[in-house]
Amino acid sequence: MTATRTETDSMGTIDVPADRYWGAQTQRSIHHFPIGVDRFRWQRPVIRALGLLKRGAAEANAELGELPKELGAWIAQAADEVIAGKLDDHFPLVVFQTGSGTQSNMNANEVIANRAIELAGGIIGSKAPVHPNDHVNRGQSSNDTFPTAMHIAVVEEIHHRLLPAVSQLRDTLATKADAYATLVKTGRTHLQDATPITLGQEIGAWVAQLDFGLATIQQALPGLYDLAIGGTAVGTGLNAHPAFGDTAAAKISALTGFPFRSASNKFFALAAHDALVNTSAALRTLAGGLMKLANDVRWLASGPRCGIGELRIPENEPGSSIMPGKVNPTQCEALTMVCVQVFGNDAAVAFAGSQGNFQLNVFKPVMVHNVLESIELIADAVTAFDQHCAQGIEPETTKIAENLNNNLMLVTALNRHIGYDKAAQIAKKAHHEGTTLKSAALALGHLTEAQYQDWIIPLDMTHP
Amino acid sequence: MTATRTETDSMGTIDVPADRYWGAQTQRSIHHFPIGVDRFRWQRPVIRALGLLKRGAAEANAELGELPKELGAWIAQAADEVIAGKLDDHFPLVVFQTGSGTQSNMNANEVIANRAIELAGGIIGSKAPVHPNDHVNRGQSSNDTFPTAMHIAVVEEIHHRLLPAVSQLRDTLATKADAYATLVKTGRTHLQDATPITLGQEIGAWVAQLDFGLATIQQALPGLYDLAIGGTAVGTGLNAHPAFGDTAAAKISALTGFPFRSASNKFFALAAHDALVNTSAALRTLAGGLMKLANDVRWLASGPRCGIGELRIPENEPGSSIMPGKVNPTQCEALTMVCVQVFGNDAAVAFAGSQGNFQLNVFKPVMVHNVLESIELIADAVTAFDQHCAQGIEPETTKIAENLNNNLMLVTALNRHIGYDKAAQIAKKAHHEGTTLKSAALALGHLTEAQYQDWIIPLDMTHP
Amino acid sequence: MTATRTETDSMGTIDVPADRYWGAQTQRSIHHFPIGVDRFRWQRPVIRALGLLKRGAAEANAELGELPKELGAWIAQAADEVIAGKLDDHFPLVVFQTGSGTQSNMNANEVIANRAIELAGGIIGSKAPVHPNDHVNRGQSSNDTFPTAMHIAVVEEIHHRLLPAVSQLRDTLATKADAYATLVKTGRTHLQDATPITLGQEIGAWVAQLDFGLATIQQALPGLYDLAIGGTAVGTGLNAHPAFGDTAAAKISALTGFPFRSASNKFFALAAHDALVNTSAALRTLAGGLMKLANDVRWLASGPRCGIGELRIPENEPGSSIMPGKVNPTQCEALTMVCVQVFGNDAAVAFAGSQGNFQLNVFKPVMVHNVLESIELIADAVTAFDQHCAQGIEPETTKIAENLNNNLMLVTALNRHIGYDKAAQIAKKAHHEGTTLKSAALALGHLTEAQYQDWIIPLDMTHP
Amino acid sequence: MTATRTETDSMGTIDVPADRYWGAQTQRSIHHFPIGVDRFRWQRPVIRALGLLKRGAAEANAELGELPKELGAWIAQAADEVIAGKLDDHFPLVVFQTGSGTQSNMNANEVIANRAIELAGGIIGSKAPVHPNDHVNRGQSSNDTFPTAMHIAVVEEIHHRLLPAVSQLRDTLATKADAYATLVKTGRTHLQDATPITLGQEIGAWVAQLDFGLATIQQALPGLYDLAIGGTAVGTGLNAHPAFGDTAAAKISALTGFPFRSASNKFFALAAHDALVNTSAALRTLAGGLMKLANDVRWLASGPRCGIGELRIPENEPGSSIMPGKVNPTQCEALTMVCVQVFGNDAAVAFAGSQGNFQLNVFKPVMVHNVLESIELIADAVTAFDQHCAQGIEPETTKIAENLNNNLMLVTALNRHIGYDKAAQIAKKAHHEGTTLKSAALALGHLTEAQYQDWIIPLDMTHP
Repeated sequence: MTATRTETDSMGTIDVPADRYWGAQTQRSIHHFPIGVDRFRWQRPVIRALGLLKRGAAEANAELGELPKELGAWIAQAADEVIAGKLDDHFPLVVFQTGSGTQSNMNANEVIANRAIELAGGIIGSKAPVHPNDHVNRGQSSNDTFPTAMHIAVVEEIHHRLLPAVSQLRDTLATKADAYATLVKTGRTHLQDATPITLGQEIGAWVAQLDFGLATIQQALPGLYDLAIGGTAVGTGLNAHPAFGDTAAAKISALTGFPFRSASNKFFALAAHDALVNTSAALRTLAGGLMKLANDVRWLASGPRCGIGELRIPENEPGSSIMPGKVNPTQCEALTMVCVQVFGNDAAVAFAGSQGNFQLNVFKPVMVHNVLESIELIADAVTAFDQHCAQGIEPETTKIAENLNNNLMLVTALNRHIGYDKAAQIAKKAHHEGTTLKSAALALGHLTEAQYQDWIIPLDMTHP
Repeated sequence: MTATRTETDSMGTIDVPADRYWGAQTQRSIHHFPIGVDRFRWQRPVIRALGLLKRGAAEANAELGELPKELGAWIAQAADEVIAGKLDDHFPLVVFQTGSGTQSNMNANEVIANRAIELAGGIIGSKAPVHPNDHVNRGQSSNDTFPTAMHIAVVEEIHHRLLPAVSQLRDTLATKADAYATLVKTGRTHLQDATPITLGQEIGAWVAQLDFGLATIQQALPGLYDLAIGGTAVGTGLNAHPAFGDTAAAKISALTGFPFRSASNKFFALAAHDALVNTSAALRTLAGGLMKLANDVRWLASGPRCGIGELRIPENEPGSSIMPGKVNPTQCEALTMVCVQVFGNDAAVAFAGSQGNFQLNVFKPVMVHNVLESIELIADAVTAFDQHCAQGIEPETTKIAENLNNNLMLVTALNRHIGYDKAAQIAKKAHHEGTTLKSAALALGHLTEAQYQDWIIPLDMTHP
Repeated sequence: MTATRTETDSMGTIDVPADRYWGAQTQRSIHHFPIGVDRFRWQRPVIRALGLLKRGAAEANAELGELPKELGAWIAQAADEVIAGKLDDHFPLVVFQTGSGTQSNMNANEVIANRAIELAGGIIGSKAPVHPNDHVNRGQSSNDTFPTAMHIAVVEEIHHRLLPAVSQLRDTLATKADAYATLVKTGRTHLQDATPITLGQEIGAWVAQLDFGLATIQQALPGLYDLAIGGTAVGTGLNAHPAFGDTAAAKISALTGFPFRSASNKFFALAAHDALVNTSAALRTLAGGLMKLANDVRWLASGPRCGIGELRIPENEPGSSIMPGKVNPTQCEALTMVCVQVFGNDAAVAFAGSQGNFQLNVFKPVMVHNVLESIELIADAVTAFDQHCAQGIEPETTKIAENLNNNLMLVTALNRHIGYDKAAQIAKKAHHEGTTLKSAALALGHLTEAQYQDWIIPLDMTHP
Repeated sequence: MTATRTETDSMGTIDVPADRYWGAQTQRSIHHFPIGVDRFRWQRPVIRALGLLKRGAAEANAELGELPKELGAWIAQAADEVIAGKLDDHFPLVVFQTGSGTQSNMNANEVIANRAIELAGGIIGSKAPVHPNDHVNRGQSSNDTFPTAMHIAVVEEIHHRLLPAVSQLRDTLATKADAYATLVKTGRTHLQDATPITLGQEIGAWVAQLDFGLATIQQALPGLYDLAIGGTAVGTGLNAHPAFGDTAAAKISALTGFPFRSASNKFFALAAHDALVNTSAALRTLAGGLMKLANDVRWLASGPRCGIGELRIPENEPGSSIMPGKVNPTQCEALTMVCVQVFGNDAAVAFAGSQGNFQLNVFKPVMVHNVLESIELIADAVTAFDQHCAQGIEPETTKIAENLNNNLMLVTALNRHIGYDKAAQIAKKAHHEGTTLKSAALALGHLTEAQYQDWIIPLDMTHP
């Protein structure tokens, strides 16, 4: 039997485990929301963000004279332990709770208050000298703190996990694009043979798409730098010092190194989370690009003998439990599965984002959860893809050359010399008779052999 | 300048075009909802369904003594003209109006009342002897009539357009599957060469998927046969004869030939449209199957020389404005574009379906609009695909044979004789050395040439 | 430093932890797919399903003479431990791996083989006397086993978790509907006051919607009972005994108690997972209904003083960290957040379902993951909602009576007596002058006081 | 019988209506793609954009010496007629055609060529002196022209329709926010009474959200200014003058007044349309905000007697066909239906955007169609909402005052004076006993009447 102590809140008393810092409201939430507990407890990014927020708030309150310096210091010290991950076991709550995140805000308030009380030599659960609402939550409401923590968590994860991972893949591919800048191959449109390109150009298009995706993520960041802090319950800032929002945002900015600021309209900052919706959409755009990239890679590597077969990718593991020797594009598969998950997560975020009422959107936890999951999955999958697939991509030069030589769309170079209609005649003749372009061209008498040699030079056609 | 007459409703008077049967409320809606007027006016299926509904209601009311027989007859006659499409020009309203479809219900009431008045020799706009609310709408509310019309329209379109079109494609493919039942070719998993199948089996899987899609559509129909009629304003049936719902449903069933019935819970029938959500989901499942099918076709037809190239599809039009002689899988492209549209439409339907409040869901028009659009687009695209692509699919037997002979995964037949590990050795050796399976097998000494001939028989491997 | 042993596969040797049963391919997957490892490891339902499948397969192979009885028995015994959850720590792989689930199939093969070897007194890792591919995977391929496990897992979770949880809520509400069958209150359409209903009717509509959702889930089950087992690599059943599919399905059916059967078209069973797409859509329909229900509850309970305030729900926890005494509809919030998550998960499933190519859909893991997550979340959230909200719903009879008495839409009962137009006059007069319906009616002289009393009887208007 | 003439393309001859300028490829498309012809023909924005593009291209080619000046002038003149809408009847093709838009590019080429031939005094259909491919399509491919036209169309529609419409609503609301800057009312969070705000603050949050939505649209524009023109078939620019892309973009920029430019990576510009995906996402964010706004308005206007009833909105039409005198928030309903449509359209766009392969995305038409539809619908619905609802919003001051006075959450102002726990006691007492806050406060002895008067001043609590 676990030892317990008694904690109280405005509803009355409740027993909590003696070895945990959380208080009555956290305990009530554990009881009332046993939803997906194995997989939906808040993880590091949100817990850390709550710690950063509470530390920033304590510093601001102390500076503004809203909290005795000593109390502020104890709270800050306890918050530091939250930031550092030392108290993760004291954050047992899940995503599917009250839609404002109130219970997780209170979880943070309770844990920090009790730990601060301990640091101050007080009795845990006594709410003295540090009260979870009156001191840790000073000048705050869940309605402004939780969205503040949401933004902090997402910004940190984008900067620390997403951007580095995607940039690394981008750089790997950029190097490949340079390496194969003049390796001519068949282009393909509508899945059909088209005019030639270089492998460098083909890979370069992936790089350009990743760059666009990264730029789209960057565009979402300024919206995330706007913090709700200072709005308190409904956006008016009731009970907060007038300078609290700006000061707290500045403190959080200093703690994290990111340019957080107090949102210009606090009512909007509580009632809607369009900056998160935009971030989710940006992740979706990036995922759409990754889907195209991963599909291209696996199709180009298809075969080995009955497909396109122009790329070779690393053989990481046996591909089949029944077909011996089979090697599959498994990194592409993991990545594309992540992409569809990101699309699904985004649908949830946008739906949730549209469902606010009056002064509050009460789908906050599910919104931040999905955005963070998408970030994590893209970062992890892209890193695996980079290391175990992209870095090892090699051209199958024999197949590339064979395909290029057979490609009837080289005929396009003739348009400028003999016109579209005659060029079409040549291509059709070669296609239907299964001959080469040159023999069809000469048979039709539309040009001489010398002209053919002069006019159809695949590498030139790529404008490398 | 257009001649006008004055119509009245509970808001007062308003001028309407003299050559139109509609009344005051229709005119007000034209004024207040100029939203997407070029493309979002209700089309035949909904107008016809409103006519069927109003005729069924008039017959029921007359039979139950709620309407004088003569009035019932005039209304029925006017409704017949609506059913037949003679009055389509008198239905000017768009999807994006009041969320209950009230204005379209009133549009039907007004047009039928005025046309019935005309038939009765009365003065159009006088509401005598036929009143749009008291007579045409007798025992009805928009809240039960509009969802009734929604179900009628969708059921008719599914039966008359969707099922025949998809079934026709299914039969075309089933015939192809039979024709190529023993044409052995390379199977592909993970886009990589796999153990052999027959072309009949490959096409047969598409047939099975279409059958599953059709069965999914069929499963959605019973929910659509439940009609809201009889529920009136909030589901209680206030102001309707107690037998009105059942009687009207029976009349509508007789008029259409489909087994419509009065819904068992009218409150649910007004407040939610889960039968439509299910129908939309069924259309999405069908679209997902069509997407896979169309993708398979275009990939198998990819090339003509640098792709998989195992199928030949009809050359319907020049493929490119710049590449002469190019032929593209355009029917596949149109069909897959329809599929993504159906996915989008479905997202709208499901979202709308979740947004009801209390006794009414006020997203009715947008729900039925999207379901009907999806039906129409699938039916049209599948018919075009059948006629201009599927019927003309032919195997490229030379390429098929070449691919099959090169396929290293024939090695799988050896598992049962020499075990997975040795079979894997053979396949890997052949792959890395670019040799045939047989030469690798013999070189490794795992089997004799005679055993190879006995054990590796592609057609047998397909269990045709 | 952890002790290791050496395992081998067709790629060569690799070290694995000595205290784990898994083999080389599992270890390679751990290395190559560190994607979302904290939250995306397979959980009980899938691991258990893999155990059930492998036991069923071993029984079938033994019965058909494809495996020595003794080997079959060891494999079955090891599989039993997987089924029972004793070996969960030996399943370290995540969702985002190869898209066929090959590595998880091999994980099961390796763990069961090594544990069976141990039971047989052999040396772990020696592949003798039990080989993971040749024996545990006998007559199987990941391509048919993994989708088989997917269906088993989903069917078990639907029957054991989802249906009981939703049925329990349904029954709670049905009891409430009975209890308040004649408690008359204001109906609402377009969020506006409408004709009266009883609270029993209002709650009964929720019950009807849950019944429809449950029926939709039931409709999805037959598709899930079809198992891919017997198809092996591409659907042909290569390397499996001809009776293997039927026999294995029968064994699995016996083990689980559910009517599993061998799918009629194995090619379709590998290449698409439309039964899962339909299941996901059914979950979405159910979620849409729950969203409407939860929204109705929280709106009816809105207030306590400045909202609708017709229902009282349990006060489970303090609602606000800043507003003392506030109580919020937190169970509704958790439930609606789950609903949007289910919508998002469904979008991922349907997208994934459309992306198969040729003989395989390689989005299997992400599909089953999302379906299982949706099931779990709905089951958990509905149970919490039932216990902590629905069971405690009580009418605020004073507010209900007050609203009913003020409701101008009682006027609708007059339509049949004085016609729509005069009734409209009355309601408008009362509305604009802020008077009662009766005084407006009498002032207009459209009826006598006695008629008013006779004609406007709210309970009668509800047709209770 | 319609008179016809014979047109030719590389497939051979075909009859076209004599009174139409289109040629063989357009005619073939009519035949092969009878998909949704009633509603899915291209409308003004795309036809106009094709005209702008062709004129810009002709000017560029003439300037660069790629076209004789005279030919360039005829083409430009014919293109001007396309731009002006004079030839709309000559554009019969639908969205669901080849996925590159080739047939619509050819439609433009054919119409402009024939009209130019006519202007030049030639014989229509003769391809002389103006050839649709060699001259009108000079230096172009559908693969670069169609996406160029997509961007032109979307940019023009955003600037000319969307931004003005949304800005107008924004300004209407900003004026209202100013007008009611100090009208204190109840705030609401979790649908529950919360601390007070002013009506100006409440409306101001909508304005802030619209501003954010507008800014999100603005962020999407730079991506749209990048034009694919110059890339021709696969991105290499084969057959185009090296300066053609830049020159044509400059011409288009001059024609439209928008800062179009040649895309820096043409391969990416053909193979993916992430700028359109981002635009669609931006429209979705805007729609999410409009959904919240429209929901707030209808809830605040709910009643008139049994809802929240704090706002009065215009009575535009009779609300019900059965409930006399009912007035519904129909503009809110039309607008929210548009919002769910935009969500659905966006899902289609993002799905389509992920499905490119190699050098081309062949979902171009469906992407631009959905983006344009969303723009049109939002613009129309917002304009209607502005004119017929927003401009007429008025506060119901009596109800607002009554609600405010009853609101227990005024207690929050006491936190800073007596602490959260005592304040909670007061609110709970008042709530459970149905008394006023003041009487409960005094009864508990936590403060004096004078303190109550001093500390609870609703307007001060709003920090107006």
